[in-house]
Amino acid sequence: MFESDSSNVLKRPDLHRMMEMAAQKLRLMGGTVELVDIGEQELPDGQTLALPKVVTAQFGNDSSKHTVCVYGHVDVQPAKLEDGWATDPYNLTDINGNLYGRGASDNKAPVLAWIHAVEAYQALNMELPVNVKFVIEGMEETGSNGLDAMILAQRDTFFSDVDYIIISDCSWLSRRPALTYGTRGNCYFFAEVEGPKQDLHSGVYGGTVIEPMTDLIGILDTLISPSGKILIPGIREAVAPLSDEEWKMYQDIQFDIDSYKNKIGVSQLMYNNKVDLLAHMWRYPTVSIHGIEGAFSDPGTKTVIPAKVTAKFSIRQVPNMDPAMVKKQVTDYLHSVFAKRKSPNTLKVTMVIGAKPWLADTQHPLYEAGKAAVKRVFGMDPDLIREGGTIPIARTFQDVIEKSIIMMPIGGFDDGLHSQNEKMSRYNYIEGTKLFIAYLNEVSLIKKTTV
Amino acid sequence: MFESDSSNVLKRPDLHRMMEMAAQKLRLMGGTVELVDIGEQELPDGQTLALPKVVTAQFGNDSSKHTVCVYGHVDVQPAKLEDGWATDPYNLTDINGNLYGRGASDNKAPVLAWIHAVEAYQALNMELPVNVKFVIEGMEETGSNGLDAMILAQRDTFFSDVDYIIISDCSWLSRRPALTYGTRGNCYFFAEVEGPKQDLHSGVYGGTVIEPMTDLIGILDTLISPSGKILIPGIREAVAPLSDEEWKMYQDIQFDIDSYKNKIGVSQLMYNNKVDLLAHMWRYPTVSIHGIEGAFSDPGTKTVIPAKVTAKFSIRQVPNMDPAMVKKQVTDYLHSVFAKRKSPNTLKVTMVIGAKPWLADTQHPLYEAGKAAVKRVFGMDPDLIREGGTIPIARTFQDVIEKSIIMMPIGGFDDGLHSQNEKMSRYNYIEGTKLFIAYLNEVSLIKKTTV
Repeated sequence: MFESDSSNVLKRPDLHRMMEMAAQKLRLMGGTVELVDIGEQELPDGQTLALPKVVTAQFGNDSSKHTVCVYGHVDVQPAKLEDGWATDPYNLTDINGNLYGRGASDNKAPVLAWIHAVEAYQALNMELPVNVKFVIEGMEETGSNGLDAMILAQRDTFFSDVDYIIISDCSWLSRRPALTYGTRGNCYFFAEVEGPKQDLHSGVYGGTVIEPMTDLIGILDTLISPSGKILIPGIREAVAPLSDEEWKMYQDIQFDIDSYKNKIGVSQLMYNNKVDLLAHMWRYPTVSIHGIEGAFSDPGTKTVIPAKVTAKFSIRQVPNMDPAMVKKQVTDYLHSVFAKRKSPNTLKVTMVIGAKPWLADTQHPLYEAGKAAVKRVFGMDPDLIREGGTIPIARTFQDVIEKSIIMMPIGGFDDGLHSQNEKMSRYNYIEGTKLFIAYLNEVSLIKKTTV
Repeated sequence: MFESDSSNVLKRPDLHRMMEMAAQKLRLMGGTVELVDIGEQELPDGQTLALPKVVTAQFGNDSSKHTVCVYGHVDVQPAKLEDGWATDPYNLTDINGNLYGRGASDNKAPVLAWIHAVEAYQALNMELPVNVKFVIEGMEETGSNGLDAMILAQRDTFFSDVDYIIISDCSWLSRRPALTYGTRGNCYFFAEVEGPKQDLHSGVYGGTVIEPMTDLIGILDTLISPSGKILIPGIREAVAPLSDEEWKMYQDIQFDIDSYKNKIGVSQLMYNNKVDLLAHMWRYPTVSIHGIEGAFSDPGTKTVIPAKVTAKFSIRQVPNMDPAMVKKQVTDYLHSVFAKRKSPNTLKVTMVIGAKPWLADTQHPLYEAGKAAVKRVFGMDPDLIREGGTIPIARTFQDVIEKSIIMMPIGGFDDGLHSQNEKMSRYNYIEGTKLFIAYLNEVSLIKKTTV
């Protein structure tokens, strides 16, 4: 397999070949294919590097049919055998029905399954029930650099006739198939405390200087309680209340707390019942402190008083929180707790990302079609789930193309995305392909007027 | 000048040449010189690198005289023009009577001044009033790797006839000459909080996991108050009370708060009077939080829940604190505040350095001789000062050689040690050399019986 690691600039030639291979595959199937140049990225050292082109493809052009656009990516997270892989991460290896390899589940197999879905219709000489478009990118794992601009630029051309967006860049929650109807957003903050004009020796100056690091620790400690309660005034009040229907829906979702704990490797979670856990994973905000820039972070010992330290923390956004309001709430609150310290150091709070959550209507025909397809292939109803993380591209499609989106995962709950020994089971790969075939058929049955 | 940066392994050849040059200088002066092999250092990648040899030298061997041993180092901190130097840091540049260059004050000029002191007696055909030995190392800036073992190995040979140790690796506090009679020690701690078995995506898992970083911030925030009060029970109680004599002595010391603030670049210090400031710089403990290993510390944003985070903090030791007791106090306290959080994560507290403070008797004949020498050269009494930092080699000489030590600085208070634009003034260099010449004479007057 190509080492299409988008975060490693040395692997960029592999990534370009990966995009070319995806385009060639779609061309040979008779698609109308373009490799769209989306420009260059600037590296931290000021050099520029060509971004992998975005592959667009079109199968069918019948204006009496719906047109779906499948989004996927074929770049991957980094992987090295010595990270703890049991097999070569870039040599797809079948062990007991599981296909191990970096990108197997995230997102190469789902992209291939969609391609196979189109091929199945072609092999059976059946007309596609809907027009199918593809948008396949190669920078998803590092933030989809260049994709937003490309979508905006092609809004009135490639995307003009698209009715629905389908994203399969997510996973089931258990062994039961799932449809995903929401993601959390993210407000990412930098809190910078600055004091002396340069780093100081802690032996020479310690005791006389009011240390920025002590101030920063002091304000970070006021963000969230040990029991997970967000202490910033106004945040909890803004969250949409959990309805009885939601509570009941969560109760019915298949979710095994013990296997979740095992996967993470912890003996205790923040909550010990399913509904609270699911709710806090998907539809309540939380604060995570990621780290501190400017302080001493290497192995070993250093006796330094860092002069300027910047904490990075983020608050997951959910309806009905508003990023602009969160920015104000966090900034005002941190400045007020900082003021109480009477420190001569200066505090600067910046919100560097303000990504909104995404939430779909599970009664929308797109989801009803999804439920029907799952029922047909798996003989059961899907779990309706959300993602705790942010999939910004969903938001972009919604805001720019203004069309409905469905997330239809086929990856297993234990596929190890971003982790060692990532895999996709043969079962999910094959049944997932069937699901996509069935889904295209179900979508064709949606009345045109309901669009 | 040689780029004798001991922290940069690529500069090691320069450092070896620096030691050879120092040895050659002392040989040409007729000293009995040795370049002592102190072995190798292991690099983080497992490779080994030869340590710079230690130069020992001896001038005079008259058993009726006292024997002093001057300790110094000729390695330096890193320096690059682009760090903000006004001149090439490795090309000694004279501007308005100041000699700018890396290592000018720390510690090359003081070492040279001691060499000139011996040369002065030789040039005047005067017998040295005491036997003079030198120990010059090349690893001081990175922890004097190999020196302790060398001192221990030569305790009964090179060091057997040494009566006094003289260290000039420190600075004055103001424009008034000073003798240094104490240093603080250092208890350096690692506090490690470990939770999940690997780093987690904060979107996917945030809200369900009890995050190690939140726990760590929570316990770090209990170490010291915004006003500088150490909150660990037992620490403050162990500190020797400030005596009336000390208070009076501090009152008389020349120390300008405004220039100290300017130097650091802050508008306000922890205390606003001279005695409190000096006391908290020299003879009270303090807590400095240096940073956190294992958390996200790079520029940019990363949505990670770090699985294992290790805070580095240190407590400066003063009489009558005992490192073993401090270790217990800190460990017990952190475990007790951690227990209150009821976190499933694990806390491990380790004390990785336990360096004792050093304190000399300012009435000792060695100090009386120092006061007399200062009076003779500068026409005034010296300030008797301490160092807030730790000079572990002083402790080693005291514990291994068991001889009295004096610290006699000649560097200016504004020399910028470890900083950009380090310098030594011609005035301090020349008058400092005179001070050393006078001091050798004063030491020779100490009665042999008082040793």
